[in-house]
Amino acid sequence: MTKRRVFFISDRTGITAETLGESLLTQFPSADFERVHIPFVDNPAAAARAVAEIERASRDDDAPPLVFSTLTDDAIQNTITACCPNVFDLFGTFIGPLEEVLDIKSSHSMGRMHGIVDTTTYDRRLNALNYTLSHDDGLKPNGLDEADIVLLGVSRSGKTPTCLYLALHYYLKAANYPLAEEDFDRSRLPPTLAKCRDKLYGLTIVPEHLSRIRHERRASGNYASLAQCRREVSGAEALFRTENIPYLDSTTISIEEIAATIVRDMKLHRAAH
Amino acid sequence: MTKRRVFFISDRTGITAETLGESLLTQFPSADFERVHIPFVDNPAAAARAVAEIERASRDDDAPPLVFSTLTDDAIQNTITACCPNVFDLFGTFIGPLEEVLDIKSSHSMGRMHGIVDTTTYDRRLNALNYTLSHDDGLKPNGLDEADIVLLGVSRSGKTPTCLYLALHYYLKAANYPLAEEDFDRSRLPPTLAKCRDKLYGLTIVPEHLSRIRHERRASGNYASLAQCRREVSGAEALFRTENIPYLDSTTISIEEIAATIVRDMKLHRAAH
Repeated sequence: MTKRRVFFISDRTGITAETLGESLLTQFPSADFERVHIPFVDNPAAAARAVAEIERASRDDDAPPLVFSTLTDDAIQNTITACCPNVFDLFGTFIGPLEEVLDIKSSHSMGRMHGIVDTTTYDRRLNALNYTLSHDDGLKPNGLDEADIVLLGVSRSGKTPTCLYLALHYYLKAANYPLAEEDFDRSRLPPTLAKCRDKLYGLTIVPEHLSRIRHERRASGNYASLAQCRREVSGAEALFRTENIPYLDSTTISIEEIAATIVRDMKLHRAAH
Repeated sequence: MTKRRVFFISDRTGITAETLGESLLTQFPSADFERVHIPFVDNPAAAARAVAEIERASRDDDAPPLVFSTLTDDAIQNTITACCPNVFDLFGTFIGPLEEVLDIKSSHSMGRMHGIVDTTTYDRRLNALNYTLSHDDGLKPNGLDEADIVLLGVSRSGKTPTCLYLALHYYLKAANYPLAEEDFDRSRLPPTLAKCRDKLYGLTIVPEHLSRIRHERRASGNYASLAQCRREVSGAEALFRTENIPYLDSTTISIEEIAATIVRDMKLHRAAH
């Protein structure tokens, strides 16, 4: 299959262009795409460089390139649109209709989304991240009062990445607590966790997958054996059911999806925007 | 000004709908929006609940609500479109034209973007995050050979959040090293850093802002004093200039923007997608 070059062009970070563009591309799993990211196209010189790159691809490739753009400056957008037949103007397509619905002119200012941040949001996000880092892996179990969410699960079930994502993306104070043998033997929650029962959420994982992940971390020992992984996972799941803790299998889903599911299930909200 | 309710509706996490929707809303800074997120609208019952919520808002609010949707199922999208005049179909708007350009039918499968992930990508991301966590704040300076990027800066200049974002979003192994008095006195790079000079990137910050952040962490002491912050920041910037290390002022920009700027300046790429 012919490889198609895909350009993501933005006047700031390119996160918006990439997010929607990639989301659209995944609907064409049989196609073969080669991505080129061109962020910070916020002046005529940068626009000219982008145009030159797109024109080179149009000349060299067997199929014409695609362009996903989020440009707030009309003149720059027009330069890009003029150089290629397949430009998807992700931003401009909606800004006109939105102006009409709202009956307000848009500010046409660049990169407000990921640009300058107000101090309250900045502090909230940083506090969430600092809290999350210092309450990873059962550290400071006495500080759980302040948590927005406490994740439980066996070692390497995905707690830490999920907590960090919850902090960075949703500005939530996300603690986590590793479940271990003694918790299963007792088949009750440790007292520190019992006190914050309404913030608990479990992560589980397919034992075979867990064993593979643990093997990669430490080559040998009982820790990564399939038998041990099976025992721990079944102990954790039994505890979640006995204690009525909602839980999710993290095996085949992305960190984004685990985090969004937890936010929905626990009726949490982004702490600030 | 009348408050406008804004719905973000998606069949999966809602990240795409939120990213583009928020990006569009920031172009209307004078308007007053109230956000409602409805993720995982992937079945008729969930669609009916979403419709009921939108209809309630249409009835109760002074101005009709806006809806940003990314739904891959046409029937569900039609249900939403039928209930409200101001639906912005962020996904469907482009999928038809894309099918035409590519001359392929789209798969119409839900949530591929943030859904199931392949093992290589998953491992790469997790390895990047594990590396980043264990090379935070000058830990394990002998492991810098493996780093994709090494951030330098004074304490609380934004190194840790940026590194975590680089790991989670760009799958990069991002180490960081705190610059302190002895580095400024010597006004040369410590030997461990000199060895990986081409991976170094500096963060700086306005001393007043740094002092405020440090005050919030520890109420007293010289550490947070403006004089101390000024001394450290000017020492760090002098070192960046002497050693020809590219650097960025993190004071007023978001973590997303700092990360995207570093990726661009250092000619890095997302390690996998």
